[in-house]
Amino acid sequence: MTGPSGDVRPMPMEGHGAYNRNSRVQAAGLLPAVTLLQDATRIVPLESGTQPVLVADYGASSGRNSLVPMAAAIGVLRERLGPERAISIVHTDLPGNDFTALFQTLEDDPDSYLKGDPAAFASAVGRSFYEQILPPESVTLGWSSWAVQWLSRVPAVIPDQVQIAFSRDPDACAAFARQAAQDWRTFLFARSRELRPGGRLVVLTMAVDDAGEFGYRPLLAAIQATLEGMVREGFIRPDELRLMAIPTVGRSRAELAAPLEDGGLGGLTIAHLEVFHAEDRIWAQFEADGDAQAFGAQWAAFSRASVFPTLAGALEGGRDDPRAAGFMERLEAGTRVQLAAAPEPMLIPLAKMVIAKDVPAGG
Amino acid sequence: MTGPSGDVRPMPMEGHGAYNRNSRVQAAGLLPAVTLLQDATRIVPLESGTQPVLVADYGASSGRNSLVPMAAAIGVLRERLGPERAISIVHTDLPGNDFTALFQTLEDDPDSYLKGDPAAFASAVGRSFYEQILPPESVTLGWSSWAVQWLSRVPAVIPDQVQIAFSRDPDACAAFARQAAQDWRTFLFARSRELRPGGRLVVLTMAVDDAGEFGYRPLLAAIQATLEGMVREGFIRPDELRLMAIPTVGRSRAELAAPLEDGGLGGLTIAHLEVFHAEDRIWAQFEADGDAQAFGAQWAAFSRASVFPTLAGALEGGRDDPRAAGFMERLEAGTRVQLAAAPEPMLIPLAKMVIAKDVPAGG
Repeated sequence: MTGPSGDVRPMPMEGHGAYNRNSRVQAAGLLPAVTLLQDATRIVPLESGTQPVLVADYGASSGRNSLVPMAAAIGVLRERLGPERAISIVHTDLPGNDFTALFQTLEDDPDSYLKGDPAAFASAVGRSFYEQILPPESVTLGWSSWAVQWLSRVPAVIPDQVQIAFSRDPDACAAFARQAAQDWRTFLFARSRELRPGGRLVVLTMAVDDAGEFGYRPLLAAIQATLEGMVREGFIRPDELRLMAIPTVGRSRAELAAPLEDGGLGGLTIAHLEVFHAEDRIWAQFEADGDAQAFGAQWAAFSRASVFPTLAGALEGGRDDPRAAGFMERLEAGTRVQLAAAPEPMLIPLAKMVIAKDVPAGG
Repeated sequence: MTGPSGDVRPMPMEGHGAYNRNSRVQAAGLLPAVTLLQDATRIVPLESGTQPVLVADYGASSGRNSLVPMAAAIGVLRERLGPERAISIVHTDLPGNDFTALFQTLEDDPDSYLKGDPAAFASAVGRSFYEQILPPESVTLGWSSWAVQWLSRVPAVIPDQVQIAFSRDPDACAAFARQAAQDWRTFLFARSRELRPGGRLVVLTMAVDDAGEFGYRPLLAAIQATLEGMVREGFIRPDELRLMAIPTVGRSRAELAAPLEDGGLGGLTIAHLEVFHAEDRIWAQFEADGDAQAFGAQWAAFSRASVFPTLAGALEGGRDDPRAAGFMERLEAGTRVQLAAAPEPMLIPLAKMVIAKDVPAGG
C-alpha cells in the first residue's frame, strides 16, 4: 500500500485461512516461548475479586498460532483461579487483518481455548500495536509472537534487495536500523502503559544471532531471483521492484535489551532474554523423506502467507492491481522451484524474552 | 448458507463498506433510541476505582451506525467520570461480519469516538449474541440497534414468500413465531448474565405496530416479484426460491414484553417500551425532489446491504455460487425499477426499549 508520499506500509498476513494453514514455521518456532509464558503466568500477581483477568495477544493474525500459547496461559491461570473467574483474551492486529478467520478459528478449531471453558472470553482489537490500544494497567499477561519484527513503515527504499539484512546500501541500512530502534521503543512504551504492576509480557521475534546472521539466506535469494526474473520478463517494472521491501528486521540481543537497560522504560525491565536458533522442521522433513518438491513448496507457502501481500502492495495499483493475484502465484512458483532444485537447511534465529512491569514501592 | 440438514442461517450485512454506505434508513430510525441511551447513561450506577466502564454494542455490523450512539453514551459518561477514566466499547457481530470495515471506520471516520478521547478503547467480539459472549456482570451499558429482529436461524421453509410477515402458510408462521419468542428470550438471558447490577440495555428493533403491521409492503412486494421473475427467466430454480427467506421478524409490544413480565428474567425488567413509526426519509426526499429513480435506488440499496446476502446464501452454491454476484445485481436492479415505477411511502414500525438489571437487595 503506497501512501501519499510513496510511504510503503506493511500488509497484514494473507487472509482466508492461508496464514493459518501456512505458518508451521512460526508454530514450531514459538514453542520455546510458551514455556516462558507458563512460567510468567505462575508468578504474576492476580487481583482478588471478580474482575476478568486480561491476557493480550499482540499480533494474532488469523489466530491458529495463538491457540497453544493462550491455552497454556489459561491452563496455569485456572490452577491459580479455579474454574469460575472470567479470563479475557484480547487478540490484536492491524485493521486489515482477517478477523473473520480469527473468530471462526476460535469458534470451530478443536484446539480453541473457548471449548470447554465457559469462563474464557475472546475479543479482538484492530489497531496497530505501535500505540496504546488497551486501557491503562489492564493487562496481566502479554504475548507477542512473530510480530514485532514487522516495522510500522518502510523507512527507505532498499535499492539492491527486498530484505534489508542482505542489502549493501549504507543509507538504507541506517534508515532501517533507526526505524527498528524507534518502533521497538514505541512498542515497549505502549505496553508499559497497558500492563498491570507486576504484569509480564513474553515476546518471541525474529532476531540476528550472535554472529550477526539474519538467516533464511536460500529463501531470500530465491525470492530476490524470482522478482528479478519477473522484471526481465516484463511482468513487473524495475521501479516497482525498487519499491518492494519486506519491512521485517532481526534485532540483536543488544538491540532488544537497549531500551530496557539503565532503569528501564515506563517501569519495564528484562526478566529473560535469549537468542536461539529454531529447529528447521521443513529441512528435517526433507532429510527424512527426500522430497525436494515438498521442501520448496512449504518454504514458498510460508513466504506467501506472511510477506508476499506486502510485496504485492508495491505494485502500481497496490493489492487491487490486476496483476496482484498473478504476482503472488508467480512469486510462489518461482521460489518453490528454486528451493526444490537445491534444498539446504535454513537458519532461523529467534529471540525469546520476558519483560516485567515493576510493582511501585509500597504498591 | 445451508448447513448439513438444510438449515439456512442468516448472513452478516454486506461488507466492503456497502452496509456503512447504505444504512441511512437504520441511521435515521435509531435516533429516537439514542435519547433513551443518554438518559440511561445518566442514571446507571458507576463503580468507583480505575476499572474501565464497559459499553457493549450488540450487532454492530461495519460500525458506521454505532458512532452516534456510542459518542452520545461516552459524552454523558465523560460528564460523570471526567476525562481520564477508561471507557471500553465492545462491538459484537457474527464471525463473518466485516470487522476490517468496522476497525477502519473507528480509525478513519471523522465522527469516530476514538478521535480526541485517548481514554476510549474499542474492541470487537465475533460471536452470535444468542449466547453469553462477555464476562459476567461486566457491562454497564448495552446498546443493540436493528439487530435482534434477525433470528438465529431460519426455522422453516416459507413456501409462498421470502418474508414471513406476508406469508399465509400457518405452519411457517407458527414456526417463525416460536423461533422469534425463543431467540428473544435467549438474547435477554445472555444479556442478563453480562449486565452489571443496575446496568441498562437499550434496544431498537423492527416491530409490528399496534395494527399488526410489519411495514415495508411495497419493498417486499418488489423483491418478491423480482425473485419470481428470475425463476421465470431460469436464472434461479424454483427450489432455490423456495429456500430463500429473510429471517427477520417484527415483534409486537406484547411479544417484546412477555419474557420480562411476572418477575422478569435473570433480574431484567422493562424500564421503557414504545412502538413507533420511523420517519421515511427516502419518501420525504422524493416528495421534495420528485426523483423516483433515486427513491427506488435508495430502497434497493438498503435491501441489498442488509438482506440480499442472506437470500444469496440460498443459491445452490451458497455465497460462492457463480451466480451470487449476478443475483445481487439483478435483484437490486429489479427492486429499484419496480419501486421507481410507483413510489409510495413505506411504513417503518420500530420498537425502542430500555431494560434494567436489578440491583440485588442489600447490593
